[in-house]
Amino acid sequence: MGPIVYINDAFIDREKACISPDDRGFYFADGVYEVIKYYRGKAFCFTDHLQRLRHSVSETRIPFNGFDQLENQGNELIHLNRMEKEYAAIYLQVTRGTAPRKHSFPGEAIPPTLYMNAFPMPPFIHQLNLGIKLILRDDIRWHRCDIKSIMLLPNAMMMQEAVENGAGECVFVRNGFFTECTHSNIFGIKGGIVYTHPDSNLILPGITKKIILQICGRLGIPFREEAMRADDFRSFDEFFISGTGNEVIPVIQIEESSIPDGRPGPVTRQIQQEFLAMTYGALAEDWSFQIWFSG
Amino acid sequence: MGPIVYINDAFIDREKACISPDDRGFYFADGVYEVIKYYRGKAFCFTDHLQRLRHSVSETRIPFNGFDQLENQGNELIHLNRMEKEYAAIYLQVTRGTAPRKHSFPGEAIPPTLYMNAFPMPPFIHQLNLGIKLILRDDIRWHRCDIKSIMLLPNAMMMQEAVENGAGECVFVRNGFFTECTHSNIFGIKGGIVYTHPDSNLILPGITKKIILQICGRLGIPFREEAMRADDFRSFDEFFISGTGNEVIPVIQIEESSIPDGRPGPVTRQIQQEFLAMTYGALAEDWSFQIWFSG
Repeated sequence: MGPIVYINDAFIDREKACISPDDRGFYFADGVYEVIKYYRGKAFCFTDHLQRLRHSVSETRIPFNGFDQLENQGNELIHLNRMEKEYAAIYLQVTRGTAPRKHSFPGEAIPPTLYMNAFPMPPFIHQLNLGIKLILRDDIRWHRCDIKSIMLLPNAMMMQEAVENGAGECVFVRNGFFTECTHSNIFGIKGGIVYTHPDSNLILPGITKKIILQICGRLGIPFREEAMRADDFRSFDEFFISGTGNEVIPVIQIEESSIPDGRPGPVTRQIQQEFLAMTYGALAEDWSFQIWFSG
Repeated sequence: MGPIVYINDAFIDREKACISPDDRGFYFADGVYEVIKYYRGKAFCFTDHLQRLRHSVSETRIPFNGFDQLENQGNELIHLNRMEKEYAAIYLQVTRGTAPRKHSFPGEAIPPTLYMNAFPMPPFIHQLNLGIKLILRDDIRWHRCDIKSIMLLPNAMMMQEAVENGAGECVFVRNGFFTECTHSNIFGIKGGIVYTHPDSNLILPGITKKIILQICGRLGIPFREEAMRADDFRSFDEFFISGTGNEVIPVIQIEESSIPDGRPGPVTRQIQQEFLAMTYGALAEDWSFQIWFSG
């Protein structure tokens, strides 16, 4: 049996899954989404994802009201795909539904489309361990990046450029400041203080970002939600990115500049290890994250 | 028999048309489109639409190369849907294809998705005749509006606000200037000179816009491709919008201000009648576009 997905009212074989070409997600990018990681069958921060989905749905005025069923549907999808003992994720997309193409919303009430799938999401051990390079590009996206919409063409284009440049992500620069990456938030560390862009219309309010700021609080690491000047990045001691899939990945290079010596920094490691302990538990201790410290 | 659509290699019943949820058009708005009007079976400016599609495809690096077949496929779709004697349109969408979800482009070569449908597009006689109201909103779209991408969520949201405010379109304002509308270009007339935003990354290079500037040239009406200041709009004598479906529609009100006396202006009418004569021929003379002149 192949993978099982959920569309509207049914769990079905992925092979049989069918979206109408008249779906407004296909015509207008008129939809929003979430990705929720399951650590061995247990959803991480489901309530936060649900709350962010409520924001996306409310701001786009999509008349979706199936929030209360989502956690059960997600759990069932993990179960049906036999991923309870793995590291996996649920992808969840809500669009305004299927109707003949016109820009304004469908006049009569039509049901939104709900699509969900499950897929393996093992820890990115190589990147977690060694860190990644970033490229740097103009933030040409729309001005409502707080909505987790499926308008991801610029994200896809820039992530492709990252891959072609041997980088693991691309950081966006708007009006001279780092905003976020194509599917991660970004943090910088200078003089022992952690900096990251404040929540606003220009970035997605990352759930991993929120957890990281809680970790900083617990560990007594000072932090400021202040945007970082792009042309000032060489003055930072460390950078890292965060996200549901990326968790806490050190940045060791931005464009052609090493950060600062091409190795993950100590504050990044401290936050990373705390995050991995929260999510993977003792398992994370087995990963060889110490190699850089010993040189 | 119901409507026939085209997906990839086949003309099929619309009811049976199926897009994979893994289509990058559905996940990432990773696609581009065109709408081409057919005047009684004859495509208007097909070559211009094809050229613009080539630009969209090239800028997004979608490996589509089926350009040479599109005109035949479009004509065939009009034929199969028995629309040769009507006013109709072809909708045509190309996405980067179907692959498991990840932001960067699919590593192996996969075929782009080509979807086409045909639909009736009669002249909007009421709007052509009486004109419409516009609302005015911040242009929150991305910065590559020259690409005719399916990233249309802000366009859909603002068009919906237009409808709710009794307006026929919404004009976007970026950095204090009118750019364009949700699915039309905008023209203003002051002191006998026609103004419209120059082609740039901030607007779609409209094909009807191009035809209108040619009409201005033929009729000896001076024009300037210069952006119009939004806070200066009350100093204009006339406005109109243009597009494949909208053709040349007078603007008689912007927000709560009449333009200038709530009636379509004479330069707009002159351009409109020339455009309608080009496209509908003698038929257009039957429409009662003169009523406003006689009061």
